[in-house]
Amino acid sequence: MSKKILVLAGDGIGPEIVAEAVKVLNALQAEGAIDVTLEEALVGGAAYDAYGDPLPEDTLAAAKASDAVLLGAVGGPKWEPLHISKRPEKGLLGLRAGLGLFANLRPAVLYPQLAAASTLKPEIVSGLDIMIVRELTGDIYFGQPRGIETLPSGERRGLNTMVYTESEVERICRVAFDIAMKRGKKVCSVDKANVLECTEMWREVATKTAADYPELELSHMYVDNAAMQLVRAPKQFDVMVTGNIFGDILSDCAAMLTGSIGMLPSASLNEHGQGMYEPIHGSAPDIAGRGVANPLATILSVAMMLRYSLGAPEAADRIDAAVSKVLDQGLRTADIMSEGMRQVGTAEMGDAVVAAL
Amino acid sequence: MSKKILVLAGDGIGPEIVAEAVKVLNALQAEGAIDVTLEEALVGGAAYDAYGDPLPEDTLAAAKASDAVLLGAVGGPKWEPLHISKRPEKGLLGLRAGLGLFANLRPAVLYPQLAAASTLKPEIVSGLDIMIVRELTGDIYFGQPRGIETLPSGERRGLNTMVYTESEVERICRVAFDIAMKRGKKVCSVDKANVLECTEMWREVATKTAADYPELELSHMYVDNAAMQLVRAPKQFDVMVTGNIFGDILSDCAAMLTGSIGMLPSASLNEHGQGMYEPIHGSAPDIAGRGVANPLATILSVAMMLRYSLGAPEAADRIDAAVSKVLDQGLRTADIMSEGMRQVGTAEMGDAVVAAL
Ligand SMILES: CC(C)[C@H](C(=O)O)[C@@H](O)C(=O)O
Ligand SMILES: CC(C)[C@H](C(=O)O)[C@@H](O)C(=O)O
Repeated sequence: MSKKILVLAGDGIGPEIVAEAVKVLNALQAEGAIDVTLEEALVGGAAYDAYGDPLPEDTLAAAKASDAVLLGAVGGPKWEPLHISKRPEKGLLGLRAGLGLFANLRPAVLYPQLAAASTLKPEIVSGLDIMIVRELTGDIYFGQPRGIETLPSGERRGLNTMVYTESEVERICRVAFDIAMKRGKKVCSVDKANVLECTEMWREVATKTAADYPELELSHMYVDNAAMQLVRAPKQFDVMVTGNIFGDILSDCAAMLTGSIGMLPSASLNEHGQGMYEPIHGSAPDIAGRGVANPLATILSVAMMLRYSLGAPEAADRIDAAVSKVLDQGLRTADIMSEGMRQVGTAEMGDAVVAAL
Repeated sequence: MSKKILVLAGDGIGPEIVAEAVKVLNALQAEGAIDVTLEEALVGGAAYDAYGDPLPEDTLAAAKASDAVLLGAVGGPKWEPLHISKRPEKGLLGLRAGLGLFANLRPAVLYPQLAAASTLKPEIVSGLDIMIVRELTGDIYFGQPRGIETLPSGERRGLNTMVYTESEVERICRVAFDIAMKRGKKVCSVDKANVLECTEMWREVATKTAADYPELELSHMYVDNAAMQLVRAPKQFDVMVTGNIFGDILSDCAAMLTGSIGMLPSASLNEHGQGMYEPIHGSAPDIAGRGVANPLATILSVAMMLRYSLGAPEAADRIDAAVSKVLDQGLRTADIMSEGMRQVGTAEMGDAVVAAL
């Protein structure tokens, strides 16, 4: 039976990079390797411009009715003056909440071909392969109460709430632990248990849940130390699991260790394996529409989609291999360009991946 | 009139490193460069062991009665099983709150003599000199409500509250802006204004406050991007200002960029210039009592104390120069040792600084 993919190009370079990922899907479809049906909708700033809403009801309904969502990127300076409730980011957060996408998988992998792009010394990052598992529908992102209130004195006071229930912590830990069991069997759970009760409970639940995984090596680290250790010796980590806000910060830090965030995909999954897939980089409004953006992170997001939501691991492996092959061929978009390589645009890079499949 | 310094050695390597800093104070005192009176008290695990309380009333009272506090470090695995309210960290947090130390200054400076210690490439970090100004008595560290509650279903729920008032944001911004005006006149304010209302207000207040500083260049950055940019191009920053929890994470990340956290001091100030001074590194229980810890961060903390709380900037400059000189002489403790240098212990390093004064 054909699987339904909702394509949300979004803002900035979103439409350009998504177009290349769709090329890859179409190529696999044409040769019968996968059976998918694509549908398109608006989200983010593009949706706000068209409907005054960064997540129109129809888009959310279409997402719910699909097996997987492919997202480009949302946001840009154009929409920054808007109230927080109308910003493109609200579309993204609404999709995460609406689909219950609690498990955000963010690999930080260094491609040997691009090792020189890292700002870290080669011996520190060569072979880097961390999987960050970030909780995505709880924490201070969604906690109530929240807002800005005026005190009797007339002064304003801004407030957000960090909150987790035991079951929320347990389910994200299970996702991380299951992934680790197929990798190095090591998980580092990151919290601030010496100060925040919410994360003290997180630590307890993580420890208790790990009892079901006798072969797993679980460690705990405070978030400030984790930020240090990522810079000091990132290869000590296999899988890291943490809450929404700490995961936001640490996963970006980890991604940048590779020096090529134009290469990093991500997956956001719910309990049923339904998922949203997107590059970890942003909408890069400064280079939008110029055909120079790197489509590889989006193409690699398609590979994650085939692996985690569409049950097509062989096709996923072929995409991963094709990306590695185009890098071996010396093709580079501007963001990862280096001496002796051949600089190509967005579409040429997409075509090269299709050819290498 | 003699200035009163309360010395809190704390736990782990605390007593060893503080002893060397006291040597430096005594040497300056002996030659009449400063006029100080030292008093000692217990805090952290040491205080818990003696009195069952990580911050005994007498210690807080002595701190309040002093012009400045010199702190070693607190904490260690021995006290980790304790309830959060009895842990060594509570002593530190109690001092911050009790003295109203809202402004935490954390320089991330790369010593040219130690450039090789960084995990980052030399061209990325050479000349690095960032001042991170972290708000220290508000935010999710102290916000109410907090705790772990049991829901009607029997499930537990952990909760902490991120909260700031406008005046709290304004006063920390003024500290950062004043410091920047004596440096590169550039401040980057870090928030998560696209998601958290509390930090949306932070951004507004920062912008408004900057109107009083016409020569200042204020920029804003989301915290996840700031973590990335610290790894990608840290030299873009002059002064960074942010809240308590983001500052905790980013200042440790920034410190580690230098590769030698054994060299970094910090200051925590209140409205009256009273301050607590401590190395940014921890209590390192693994090497405690062996006479190998690096005392330089604590000695440099004394320099900050003389500069910010005791009105003795010349003596402070002399300490800074002496530390640079011992590095030029090739002396290194184990944590910063490299080929061709001479490895020394804690006391020998302290003596060398005194000799170089
Ligand atoms: C755009 C923003 C709301 C989002 C987040 O904070 O989760 C982004 O930073 C991310 O990590 O996907
Ligand atoms: C020990 C801990 C409570 C403290 C903090 O989180 O503030 C420490 O990490 C620091 O940065 O001084």
